[in-house]
Amino acid sequence: MDPKVVAAMQPYFSENFYNPSAPYAPAIVVRRAYQAAKDSLGHTLGVKGDELVMTAGATESINLAFHSIGGHIVTANVEHHAVLEAAKQYEHTLVKADERGLMTPTMVKAAIRSDTRLVSIAIANNELGTIQPLRAIAEVIREVRKTRLAHGNHTPIYLHSDASQGVGQLDINVARLGVDLLTLNAAKVYGPKQVGLLWAASFVTLNPQVRGGGQEGGIRSGTENVAGVVGFAKAMELASEHRKYESDRLATLRDTLQNKLMAAFPNAVLSGHQKHRLAGHLHISFPNLDAERVLFALESRGVLVATGSACAANKGTRSHVLTAIGLPPKIADGSIRMTLGHMSNEENIAQATMHIIEEVRREYARVQS
Amino acid sequence: MDPKVVAAMQPYFSENFYNPSAPYAPAIVVRRAYQAAKDSLGHTLGVKGDELVMTAGATESINLAFHSIGGHIVTANVEHHAVLEAAKQYEHTLVKADERGLMTPTMVKAAIRSDTRLVSIAIANNELGTIQPLRAIAEVIREVRKTRLAHGNHTPIYLHSDASQGVGQLDINVARLGVDLLTLNAAKVYGPKQVGLLWAASFVTLNPQVRGGGQEGGIRSGTENVAGVVGFAKAMELASEHRKYESDRLATLRDTLQNKLMAAFPNAVLSGHQKHRLAGHLHISFPNLDAERVLFALESRGVLVATGSACAANKGTRSHVLTAIGLPPKIADGSIRMTLGHMSNEENIAQATMHIIEEVRREYARVQS
Repeated sequence: MDPKVVAAMQPYFSENFYNPSAPYAPAIVVRRAYQAAKDSLGHTLGVKGDELVMTAGATESINLAFHSIGGHIVTANVEHHAVLEAAKQYEHTLVKADERGLMTPTMVKAAIRSDTRLVSIAIANNELGTIQPLRAIAEVIREVRKTRLAHGNHTPIYLHSDASQGVGQLDINVARLGVDLLTLNAAKVYGPKQVGLLWAASFVTLNPQVRGGGQEGGIRSGTENVAGVVGFAKAMELASEHRKYESDRLATLRDTLQNKLMAAFPNAVLSGHQKHRLAGHLHISFPNLDAERVLFALESRGVLVATGSACAANKGTRSHVLTAIGLPPKIADGSIRMTLGHMSNEENIAQATMHIIEEVRREYARVQS
Repeated sequence: MDPKVVAAMQPYFSENFYNPSAPYAPAIVVRRAYQAAKDSLGHTLGVKGDELVMTAGATESINLAFHSIGGHIVTANVEHHAVLEAAKQYEHTLVKADERGLMTPTMVKAAIRSDTRLVSIAIANNELGTIQPLRAIAEVIREVRKTRLAHGNHTPIYLHSDASQGVGQLDINVARLGVDLLTLNAAKVYGPKQVGLLWAASFVTLNPQVRGGGQEGGIRSGTENVAGVVGFAKAMELASEHRKYESDRLATLRDTLQNKLMAAFPNAVLSGHQKHRLAGHLHISFPNLDAERVLFALESRGVLVATGSACAANKGTRSHVLTAIGLPPKIADGSIRMTLGHMSNEENIAQATMHIIEEVRREYARVQS
């Protein structure tokens, strides 16, 4: 977490620990701080604070969105596990992304049936960094609505996006994106873990999964996570403030890293869209190498990289995203995913580049001997 | 929160902020800390750490338990809103508690049908402090199981208890309580908000509401709340360590407060079981007074008391618990609920007693003039 985020949260751990729903004045101060934090989060999305349902993270938000709308769902084979697992509970179609992990509006349109109620596409892929053309996909949804209306089909259709990966680097104004529901996660912007939100347009009816005291407009009960939401708002403010500068800075660092690795290993394979890609993401595969061995070697030198997504990595299975984009096993198993962030700078990226080149060379030498 | 809890959480906000499911070594350290925290929590319940499903609080735990078992549910009309609202989604019977808020085993037995799958009784009532005879109720459940087996009825029946109110003052060993599922909340033991757990016996099948990366044994997905769970474990350790001493200390303080108030206002009405009651709870009603006016007057003098439960208070409705125990409106509306805790001591309770007596006298004088 950003130290400024931790500092913003501290008062709500101790002196301001009152239940925001309690009637006495110190609790009202807490309630106002909570509402102000939601307003601030809403501001980044271009909506009002009370349109947001605060949750325990993106996974819960996605499940709440799917639970609320159900019906036939269209999503992609490169989506996060949270989306894929939530979708499994309903009739659904998985659109096949192209080899860059991209979903085109045409692909989405082809998958929409007359009874499709929800299309869910993440703003950017968490492994490849590929940014999806959400605005153009939203245009497809609008066309479908018009066509349905003209044919007397009153089945609603909504566009949901998990924007957790994009926040801090992309514009997440919901009107400009054209989405009807949006999920965000605090931990992806140097905020606290287990804090997220779901925004839904006023014409979308949300159906609670967790019922009780009626918090969050009755949509998600449970005593409010005041410290967590205040931290989320602070993290989002910091991310929005530096978004343009930080994106440019990370893209420059990432491009340098990418160019040096490609120069050293001309047979390496870059995955993800090379233009529409998150600034801090680099996905590179070294054919015939065991990426896990490189990962452990790099770790002992202080360079932390990933192979698949963290969830899949822990299960010892190959990344479903790499399978989905058709990367052959020999290439997929040599894949390393690097993410740059606030703490990345010219100096440590130069050092990391050197370590990676050395360790990949060492591993190639071992395999070839 | 207890300052020791905040201190225990701090490292997991910054240097140990890794995703515990990530493959590299610093993340494994975080994963071990997370597992150690769950083991420590399990120890208090007399179970293994990996039998616990960590959630975003008691409300989510209760909803998960009900969602998993469903069927006909037996619960009480004095239960917390989280239980009542979760129960509304299923066929259910609300047992009427007696005038002390007590549920007897006989009452529970009478409400169980041949298709009842779940009985849910909180360990103690959050407004009145009345402690329920859980062990004797568990005995009823065991008898029902035997009878069902003898009659070839294979419908399972489980006992769930929300023990959030009792933790820190009561023994919550699940074997001694005889429960099959147990819910706990961290904030009730000076731990963080939005952290809770659900324990279920190995023979109970839980059915996830939130699906995704497969955390918590696949029962509750989402990146783990490491800081929150570490804080919960620390809070629980502190609470367990001082449980006996703290219960006795609070009961003594509470009894002094109660005796002085009853001496000053002999017409006041005490609610809740006077013997089987949480040590820190005092529920007292001043007939014909408007408790809210007293609450606001006391607040300006630094004494924070409540009228109904926080959730209900915020909606301006009379507490459903007071209605359930048959307290007439003229008495119920003059009800004040006081909870003593770690920060209560002889000196501030003596001061509070004085303020309460003065303000109640002032309010009686106003009403009678």
